[in-house]
Amino acid sequence: QDNAVPKQASGCVSCHSADGNPLVEGVPILSGQRSDYLEAALKAYREGRRTGGPADVMRFYTKELSDEDIKEISEWFAQN
Amino acid sequence: QDNAVPKQASGCVSCHSADGNPLVEGVPILSGQRSDYLEAALKAYREGRRTGGPADVMRFYTKELSDEDIKEISEWFAQN
Repeated sequence: QDNAVPKQASGCVSCHSADGNPLVEGVPILSGQRSDYLEAALKAYREGRRTGGPADVMRFYTKELSDEDIKEISEWFAQN
Repeated sequence: QDNAVPKQASGCVSCHSADGNPLVEGVPILSGQRSDYLEAALKAYREGRRTGGPADVMRFYTKELSDEDIKEISEWFAQN
């Protein structure tokens, strides 16, 4: 599907892109990843359970996200 | 390629499997992921920079791995 990027995920695509080709080195491919894992990872970043280097960048991007936002972002990347 | 699982990765496949279908819920797909990201993630687990839930399991699996092991595991999953 090329359904539109949900607004909560607009920040993600600048590094991860909306397909299997991240734009930044060392950044993981999210497209097609399992949504339950993505939810767990986003929550880990939000709760500060992932630290150091890019993890601190992710903490910045996730700290305002609600559980609902996280669910929607995770499901979108898993299907995209 | 279906090149054989490197011995350092034998522990990984029991949950992640050797293809795109992890055997355990909430566990990420590793096959086809970017090797530089996998290296960074494995080191984060090894150094205790990822904590809580499955991250603690990963810490157990990674604490004895050398940088060379980590590189080989990451490259193998990226290509497999």
